[in-house]
Amino acid sequence: MQMPAPDARVMAKKDHVLRRLMAVLPEDAVIHDPTATRAYECDALTAYRCPPLAAVLPASTAEVAAVLKICHEERVPVVPRGSGTSLAGGALPTADSVILGVARLNEVLEVDYPNRFIRVQAGRTNLSVTGAVEGDGWFYAPDPSSQLACAIAGNIGMNSGGAHCLKYGVTTNNLLGVTLVMMDGTVVEIGGAHLDAAGYDWLGVICGSEGQLGVVTEATLRILPKPEGARPVLMGFDSSEVAGACVADIIRAGVLPVAIEFMDRPCIAATEAFAGAGYPDCEALLIVEVEGCPAEIDEQLALIKRIAEGHRPVALRESGSAEESARIWLGRKSAFGAMGQLGDYMCLDGTIPVSALPEVLRRIGELSAEMGLRVANVFHAGDGNMHPLILFDANAPGDLERCEALGAEILKLCVKAGGCLTGEHGVGVEKRDLMGVQYRPEDLDAQMRVKDVFDPDWLLNPAKVFPLEASAGRRAG
Amino acid sequence: MQMPAPDARVMAKKDHVLRRLMAVLPEDAVIHDPTATRAYECDALTAYRCPPLAAVLPASTAEVAAVLKICHEERVPVVPRGSGTSLAGGALPTADSVILGVARLNEVLEVDYPNRFIRVQAGRTNLSVTGAVEGDGWFYAPDPSSQLACAIAGNIGMNSGGAHCLKYGVTTNNLLGVTLVMMDGTVVEIGGAHLDAAGYDWLGVICGSEGQLGVVTEATLRILPKPEGARPVLMGFDSSEVAGACVADIIRAGVLPVAIEFMDRPCIAATEAFAGAGYPDCEALLIVEVEGCPAEIDEQLALIKRIAEGHRPVALRESGSAEESARIWLGRKSAFGAMGQLGDYMCLDGTIPVSALPEVLRRIGELSAEMGLRVANVFHAGDGNMHPLILFDANAPGDLERCEALGAEILKLCVKAGGCLTGEHGVGVEKRDLMGVQYRPEDLDAQMRVKDVFDPDWLLNPAKVFPLEASAGRRAG
Repeated sequence: MQMPAPDARVMAKKDHVLRRLMAVLPEDAVIHDPTATRAYECDALTAYRCPPLAAVLPASTAEVAAVLKICHEERVPVVPRGSGTSLAGGALPTADSVILGVARLNEVLEVDYPNRFIRVQAGRTNLSVTGAVEGDGWFYAPDPSSQLACAIAGNIGMNSGGAHCLKYGVTTNNLLGVTLVMMDGTVVEIGGAHLDAAGYDWLGVICGSEGQLGVVTEATLRILPKPEGARPVLMGFDSSEVAGACVADIIRAGVLPVAIEFMDRPCIAATEAFAGAGYPDCEALLIVEVEGCPAEIDEQLALIKRIAEGHRPVALRESGSAEESARIWLGRKSAFGAMGQLGDYMCLDGTIPVSALPEVLRRIGELSAEMGLRVANVFHAGDGNMHPLILFDANAPGDLERCEALGAEILKLCVKAGGCLTGEHGVGVEKRDLMGVQYRPEDLDAQMRVKDVFDPDWLLNPAKVFPLEASAGRRAG
Repeated sequence: MQMPAPDARVMAKKDHVLRRLMAVLPEDAVIHDPTATRAYECDALTAYRCPPLAAVLPASTAEVAAVLKICHEERVPVVPRGSGTSLAGGALPTADSVILGVARLNEVLEVDYPNRFIRVQAGRTNLSVTGAVEGDGWFYAPDPSSQLACAIAGNIGMNSGGAHCLKYGVTTNNLLGVTLVMMDGTVVEIGGAHLDAAGYDWLGVICGSEGQLGVVTEATLRILPKPEGARPVLMGFDSSEVAGACVADIIRAGVLPVAIEFMDRPCIAATEAFAGAGYPDCEALLIVEVEGCPAEIDEQLALIKRIAEGHRPVALRESGSAEESARIWLGRKSAFGAMGQLGDYMCLDGTIPVSALPEVLRRIGELSAEMGLRVANVFHAGDGNMHPLILFDANAPGDLERCEALGAEILKLCVKAGGCLTGEHGVGVEKRDLMGVQYRPEDLDAQMRVKDVFDPDWLLNPAKVFPLEASAGRRAG
């Protein structure tokens, strides 16, 4: 992974920049001690590390604006950071950059049930947004696996999804408005709490822009009434292709489960050893969950089980109690932790048309065999968002490089199947150099011209998303 | 209503332009006879009329591109037109413009149930999109009142909603991708059929841009499985404020009906006389519909009726049969036709926070009395999208002007309440001069700079959306 050389001009005036930052922020909000900045040297893509020039922790929109104004005047790159849970290196610093962490921006600003929204500061964690309203019977739908830790700011940056997104959509479908601080310190409001807005709709452009267009400090989010109940059914199949075909048939039949989760044998085995969820011994497993009142749940599950039976499942078990449901989900939610017990892994993120699942899974199996690295699959099958986990040994010379090469092949396969390079993790640094697989040079140029408009000097998270050669003429340094 | 003077330069070369258009389109696809162009002189905002230079009816994306390329080279303004059902004058021609009608682009291109989408040419009518999939148990959710006639292209241009949007969202929430022809004839694909896309998300900017950024020729739309059943309940109240408070309480309680429709006394009376739907004699009426399996419907309606009873309804009747449900909806769906029997009317479109309904309805009543024009209200109350109908007499001198003045006051009231100038009809020419109520000059300039990027010569629908003085320096002619 190549990163651009630090800008010598910035490094030389480090002390001057720090002094200016310390003049607008409280003492404990500017972190520059080399030991302390180590905490910000990487995000959840831990294979790549680089301590930043400094990290700042502003506690208000005004402080964010003051920081950006200074960095703009001094031409210092800024890397916005939510909770640092990016799996694509979205919050990876460069040595000449200031990390702008939004963790102190974590207040609930407004809860409005008649108008069905909550307004929060963007550093608030995903799960604590639901936490603020669940006592009254409401919830915020997008639920990334990292929801205990990840920040709404990061969810917006990456357009995050989660297990429940089949029914409720991803972040962009649940975001009503943002307060955005531009690189020059200007504060703008985009969207709002109410239906429609009379100008052009910038929310879509901001959501998923990976912190390259501005820093989101506040967000207005759609909240939903909690359904009366939910119940999962567990299905085991003797091949991944058959499980994939079952998913396509469920969707085609016109039921819309709230989640269809997929796990293959390597993942099932690791999870069972770790969490003991009582999963069947099989090649591929689906967890299909439906929501509603008991009668509606009964009827939907009856149809789903009828479809599954047509695919000759080796196991088919409907949850009989709240405890059993919790145990089924505990397994799925422990899957990433369980895989970590097996060794190092890289978690990929790509999307494909649901109908291509069987073929793509078959081809991933072949690629895994060819390259001699094990791949485990655990993902949101209902909306075609795949998360192949490639197992490798970080201490074995050459293993990381082979892992990266296999990852690239799998993502190319997603694009070829009609899908795309990223579902919910973003491009970050991880998939930067693969953008050319999906886009022609003129497409990339058109995308970079959007950044030109929002951030003409390319100071915001500049070394991400675009191949370094493509953005070289635009980045400072 | 002032429109810009026709561009003399364009008028002088009319024959030359027509010859070029006829060279790339079939003979019957270029309409220029003054009698025939009269069919395109207005849309559903019939108070304003102006025959165009010509109207063209291309039948493919390639033909649309050929037309735009010629008009771009000749610097002739183009006004895109779906089915001409705009209530805001979005498809109103200028004398120097070519109307580009997409009515011949009406094919279904692809239906894909496993991936839950339909791809259609954009001139296809809204209702016939559902028509193409309902036999298999699916539907397309946005349902404008004009759905029998209105085109998907127009739905995208105005970000249309409808009665079912409380639960399913408006067009922007159900649009996955478009084929867009730029003013210079370039064809671009934006979004696609599958989850997420790796570049910036332009769909939000295109949806609702009123034909000012490009011409949409194909659209990929989310389709949904039809719910098992639906059932409405009819509620009468002795004041509009109380009905509004009941709506806010229903939403606050965490039920999400598929529709909450509101009608006030003038509208109820006209509708009863016209359609005989059996509506109660009262000041305000709500139709609340819920969906699901029978048990779920029973439970939701029980809660809704309990809330309604707290507001002392003068009538409360749950539908007991499919026939009764149809009759209840027939009344609502005939409301606009019924109002037309009473005389001329102007249909407004604004949004407000749901919680502000009681206060805004009260204030509309006062304004109506002050200005001496009757106002009837019929609208989607659940998401705060209001449609006050102002009754006037087009033959009475000064009545139209008073009607426009009252409309402007009501829309200002919406903005003041925290809402906005348009919910689903767009700005068009109707609300062009009110944009300054919602936006500062620098906000408008920022919006116009977006159009500068997509259409540097301001040839696409140029006299719409922005106040004429604000856009004067940019428009040709």
